[in-house]
Amino acid sequence: MSDNVKATNITWHEATVGREDREKLHGHRAACLWFTGLPSSGKSTIALEVENLLHAQGCHTIVLDGDNIRHGLNKNLGFSPEDRAENIRRIGEVANLFVEGGTIVMTAFISPYREDRDMARALVPEGRFFEIHVDCALDICEERDPKGLYKKARAGEIKDFTGIDAPYEAPKNPEIVIDTGALSLEESAQRVIDALKESGILP
Amino acid sequence: MSDNVKATNITWHEATVGREDREKLHGHRAACLWFTGLPSSGKSTIALEVENLLHAQGCHTIVLDGDNIRHGLNKNLGFSPEDRAENIRRIGEVANLFVEGGTIVMTAFISPYREDRDMARALVPEGRFFEIHVDCALDICEERDPKGLYKKARAGEIKDFTGIDAPYEAPKNPEIVIDTGALSLEESAQRVIDALKESGILP
Repeated sequence: MSDNVKATNITWHEATVGREDREKLHGHRAACLWFTGLPSSGKSTIALEVENLLHAQGCHTIVLDGDNIRHGLNKNLGFSPEDRAENIRRIGEVANLFVEGGTIVMTAFISPYREDRDMARALVPEGRFFEIHVDCALDICEERDPKGLYKKARAGEIKDFTGIDAPYEAPKNPEIVIDTGALSLEESAQRVIDALKESGILP
Repeated sequence: MSDNVKATNITWHEATVGREDREKLHGHRAACLWFTGLPSSGKSTIALEVENLLHAQGCHTIVLDGDNIRHGLNKNLGFSPEDRAENIRRIGEVANLFVEGGTIVMTAFISPYREDRDMARALVPEGRFFEIHVDCALDICEERDPKGLYKKARAGEIKDFTGIDAPYEAPKNPEIVIDTGALSLEESAQRVIDALKESGILP
């Protein structure tokens, strides 16, 4: 067995299932759709709507957001600049694993720092990273405030809240911009789908 | 838009694509195959062979191993007991995300501590975690030693090496045991496939 395994080690390095094999099986290319924007700008909502549309046409998808990351993989991280950077680093690494797995992975996190987003971009193969700026005016985000977080931040009960007392660095050259103050949810999601078709991610 | 998004927030929580939707699309159930065993016991080799067989029949798979985890997500972890535990915790969380994504995810790590493996098991839905003990005598593993690590550990150049000067706690009730001293690679992989059929993961 010892020699067998060694011999096989050589063999399987050639025969290993790779991203392209999985993409062929799935019928579409893999990509990372990185949604970024202020709290309550609509990142998760749009990502989940895009997922609905993609799943309906047989695409392989996953959405990473606060619900499944902050309570799981990143539950041991806080909101200091170092922890925010590590938060985004881990999400970028996991997103890249899903790209390797042939999936269209969507990440919906504020990800306020340009440097951190660029780090995530660098982890993903060229042409497979789509930075999507969910661009919504602060006053509209604050008016929505479904979890009452802006209110708490204004009252000083939450510190380092992006948009209030922590910075948000808007993307300079995002692949997609969605103005959720002007577009409906359906139009927003369709804009993403169109971009995936134009770039050849979708057939 | 503000009211639209709020209303949609309520809607998509019902319409969100879930694991079962993805399993229906993929044509098989999701599972985590957790390979554990001594260094050079054959964990990665068998996992990659299982992946080849599964991919050939159209299953959605990924293998997490040292190559894509230790150099990526977990590159900021060492080999202290705390770091080993955090290493396994993160792998367990990522494996669970892949299960959520409808994938058959295989993890190939020594994962020497029972407590850590039980923690990983607890993260994955009931009935979807398969602990696979790649059971191989130490002297056979040491004889294989494709990377010369046992040799370095014996020479004292590597500390805390599992099997030499760090413990390996064998699983007490693994779902699958593979004796790679007695089975060929093909037989080993087939044993895993058979178990997946018996348990209904594969149709």
